[in-house]
Amino acid sequence: MALRAGGRALRLLPGRLRAPAARLGSRGAAEAQEDAEVNTRKKTFTEVQTERLEQAERTVLIKCPSRLNEKKLLQYLSSHGKINSHFFFENRGIHALIEFSEKSSVASLQDVVGIPKAVEHHVVPFKSRLFTFTLKNPVAKTAEETPVHLSPQSHIPVNELIQKLHKADSISSQMYILLNEYQLTEENIKLRFLACSLVQDFARAYFPDSTVKPFGSSVNTFGKLGCDVDMFLDFRDAQEHAAKMKKGPFEMEYQMKRLPSERLATQKILSVIGDCLDNFGPGCVSIQKILNARCPLVKFAHQPTGFQCDLSVSNSIAIRSSELLYIYGTLDPRVRALVFSLRCWARVHGLTNSIPGTWITNFSLTMMVMFFLQKRSPPIIPTLDQLKELADEKDKHIIGGYDCSFVSDLSKINPTKNTETLDELLCDFFEYFGNFDFRKNSLNLRRGKEVNKPESSPLYIWNPFEQDLNISKNVNQPQLEKFVAMARESAWILQKEDRTQRMINKEPWGLAALLIPFGKSNTNKMRRTKGMGSETIRSLLDSLKLSNASNLQKAVGK
Amino acid sequence: MALRAGGRALRLLPGRLRAPAARLGSRGAAEAQEDAEVNTRKKTFTEVQTERLEQAERTVLIKCPSRLNEKKLLQYLSSHGKINSHFFFENRGIHALIEFSEKSSVASLQDVVGIPKAVEHHVVPFKSRLFTFTLKNPVAKTAEETPVHLSPQSHIPVNELIQKLHKADSISSQMYILLNEYQLTEENIKLRFLACSLVQDFARAYFPDSTVKPFGSSVNTFGKLGCDVDMFLDFRDAQEHAAKMKKGPFEMEYQMKRLPSERLATQKILSVIGDCLDNFGPGCVSIQKILNARCPLVKFAHQPTGFQCDLSVSNSIAIRSSELLYIYGTLDPRVRALVFSLRCWARVHGLTNSIPGTWITNFSLTMMVMFFLQKRSPPIIPTLDQLKELADEKDKHIIGGYDCSFVSDLSKINPTKNTETLDELLCDFFEYFGNFDFRKNSLNLRRGKEVNKPESSPLYIWNPFEQDLNISKNVNQPQLEKFVAMARESAWILQKEDRTQRMINKEPWGLAALLIPFGKSNTNKMRRTKGMGSETIRSLLDSLKLSNASNLQKAVGK
Repeated sequence: MALRAGGRALRLLPGRLRAPAARLGSRGAAEAQEDAEVNTRKKTFTEVQTERLEQAERTVLIKCPSRLNEKKLLQYLSSHGKINSHFFFENRGIHALIEFSEKSSVASLQDVVGIPKAVEHHVVPFKSRLFTFTLKNPVAKTAEETPVHLSPQSHIPVNELIQKLHKADSISSQMYILLNEYQLTEENIKLRFLACSLVQDFARAYFPDSTVKPFGSSVNTFGKLGCDVDMFLDFRDAQEHAAKMKKGPFEMEYQMKRLPSERLATQKILSVIGDCLDNFGPGCVSIQKILNARCPLVKFAHQPTGFQCDLSVSNSIAIRSSELLYIYGTLDPRVRALVFSLRCWARVHGLTNSIPGTWITNFSLTMMVMFFLQKRSPPIIPTLDQLKELADEKDKHIIGGYDCSFVSDLSKINPTKNTETLDELLCDFFEYFGNFDFRKNSLNLRRGKEVNKPESSPLYIWNPFEQDLNISKNVNQPQLEKFVAMARESAWILQKEDRTQRMINKEPWGLAALLIPFGKSNTNKMRRTKGMGSETIRSLLDSLKLSNASNLQKAVGK
Repeated sequence: MALRAGGRALRLLPGRLRAPAARLGSRGAAEAQEDAEVNTRKKTFTEVQTERLEQAERTVLIKCPSRLNEKKLLQYLSSHGKINSHFFFENRGIHALIEFSEKSSVASLQDVVGIPKAVEHHVVPFKSRLFTFTLKNPVAKTAEETPVHLSPQSHIPVNELIQKLHKADSISSQMYILLNEYQLTEENIKLRFLACSLVQDFARAYFPDSTVKPFGSSVNTFGKLGCDVDMFLDFRDAQEHAAKMKKGPFEMEYQMKRLPSERLATQKILSVIGDCLDNFGPGCVSIQKILNARCPLVKFAHQPTGFQCDLSVSNSIAIRSSELLYIYGTLDPRVRALVFSLRCWARVHGLTNSIPGTWITNFSLTMMVMFFLQKRSPPIIPTLDQLKELADEKDKHIIGGYDCSFVSDLSKINPTKNTETLDELLCDFFEYFGNFDFRKNSLNLRRGKEVNKPESSPLYIWNPFEQDLNISKNVNQPQLEKFVAMARESAWILQKEDRTQRMINKEPWGLAALLIPFGKSNTNKMRRTKGMGSETIRSLLDSLKLSNASNLQKAVGK
């Protein structure tokens, strides 16, 4: 825990929200000016992606002994080129991520790295950017070899979080503490892009123009430490390149395997890359090919980075969704703090689940928060229609007949005039959805308006891009009812609690009070016998819920 | 047929035997002198292999329209660099093999080649060195677009061959005609190395230090047009490289998939490369993985070159066998002429077969010829022990405990003083094996001596390298008896025939007479009614065989 706490100390709360723009490594004098220009504004989603992908290509991962002389290791590696950044982390042993300044340094290092000797085992001689570092003559531990500082790659458990929240001075602060503990760190993001880049090495072996890019939570600013890495294989650049090459008196084409459908091509490519990862990829285990899904994918565990990965082939709409969330998450610091707090709250109360089912998904919940923020007065974030109005020619994206255009340049979006605190927003969120007429209305984020439900799904949230789809079609009536009940109870707790008294009593207060399953005592075990018994509290809560029961049933459409 | 005959016209008979040394393309001024030095002597097996592999890497294959302006095509291609050599051939359409002078020309061409547009089909965008060439605006056939000269890639059928043999003036000439019709052409050899090089592109995608090399009949100078391409994936260079890299204060190793046995690693690598060929490789069809065989392999048909290919992983002893045959085949022009003639003879009479079984293999038959040539007085080729005595330090090869060393430099081997004609050799071969005491003796090519059989297999030929193995273990007693009977009959035909009379009668004579299944009339259908009936001939032959029957049974060990 000491290590974790140490890792956090450097990060300031609101400053972190602009991290992608603020943490540029300088690469060369030539690029410095351009970088400086870009740094003065918030980067676009594409700029961040491109930069991080390029960084990842200059990066290697080294498994180290548990005690080592960090300085000597870096000195040794520096003989292959300047190191831009590095960090250590724990994952089945100590690992070092080393980002060189130049891609050529990786090749230079690879040139002197050996193939393990085959004494008792034989190896598949695929040369990746994953190395193992050992001391040739392991001597007795000297003073020089000290444990290195380790960057945390997972978040603290909820019970530890609750302890931390106690010391805050407002619900707002509590929400930023939660955000800071749960959000992806700079180091974790680098590691995610490295995982993609290592898979890209496999894809580029056969498709040199292809790219493997992360999408979803790894890049939409709403990812939590420990979440899966969704990545996709992109051939689009290659195709654009090919299209412009057809000139000259003759036509010369590659002979290529032809298949009756794009889906079949996707399946075959994913299948072979899955086999390559399985058979050649060091630390790629538990490969599962799910090729008959609507969106064919290969799941695998990537042991060197510690990530569970999902590899699919370019899904344009998923990428637009990632960028939309990136924009919303980057526009105002309150957005992510509210989403992270509500996701944690929903998880504690069993409203979301990592297993697919009738639960509300994280994506649906996030969209509900976005909708809520569009509805504030004045709005905290713009509607999707407003973002589309700001789009210029290069922002135009028509995908499968759907207009998925919206502005990519954040500086074109006027900052909100709304000054509400997160304390207010959290409480109002619960109240807003505790009283929402789900029976009649749906959430339309394009227009930022409640509109009549087009069909009878209990919860209807318009897919922002494929507008004839409901992103929360999976949610059933009992789950929706549970959500509404929890929202109401949470609103009630926040409104009724005597914060001063709770702080004196060392009882969880504010956000912390909402992160303890209702029905359990909100006080710790020691205190329980002193105050009211947990059963007493429970029956009190139940009576309060009962008084709301008829309203509830109306609201959710029974 | 006109095209085929045209292709042959340029090749002179005995000159062809030194083709690998004589047909060097000049690559650059710097290399010219070295080449000149090498050209004055016969090249070693390794020199030929290295040179041809390197040529193949600079080579592309282009599918062309049936009528085209050859000059314009070459002009267009020359814009990407100097063309060293080129030829056209027919294989499911017209193809051009283009060998550039520089490897960079291939990349330059690839840069402007397009990806087929996906209208009704989708493609797997793997960019190989196989292109399709079309005219953008197919105009009416002009005088400029003429059929190109096509190099034959298969040999003529036996009945056509027999016609050709008739015109020769000696059995020797007949044997050289047969050799010339059946042996691999320069163009076909280039195509074989290209097939390997294209598979190498797949292997190098993941294992950049690996090589795919042909072995067996494609390179041992005994390959027949149309024979399969045996190729193997070689990691040895990579391993040698890795071994010398381990120095410095630290040890840095690649993280690699570890497997309990080399066999398992081989199986996995072949399996994945098989899948890659299957799914990505244009024209790679009918992939069969035979991974549980003693020597795991992947069989596939390579449509662009028209070859049936067997891909395995480096088999050192098979490579030594290839080099040994290369040496024997290159030492004296009579060697290959005799082997080709006897293989054709054996095939006609059902003594060999393309299906594995109890038949004598081509390899066994070739070894019998080599043994026979070692036994001549003076010997035509040296024994393997003699070749080993000539070996120097760099020729040393100990494989799996067996000493597989022999000289690689052909100039160190004294030319034979034997001046026998092929007429004599052919007849004596039949006589020698017609009277060989197979019951008691085995063939030992290391010593060039008949030695007592170490076990009771009907035919025992010592494996030249793994000396406790019998290369003809598969042959059963009836097959051996059939071989001996055919040898005796052939000897009898050659000794008794009245060549002049047969030539006047336009009957097949000499070698041609041996290439007609015995028991069928040796005259053509028109003549049959004029001379003796086929039944009459048959019974005559049968009576001759009968008179030898008791001798035969003794000889083969009944």
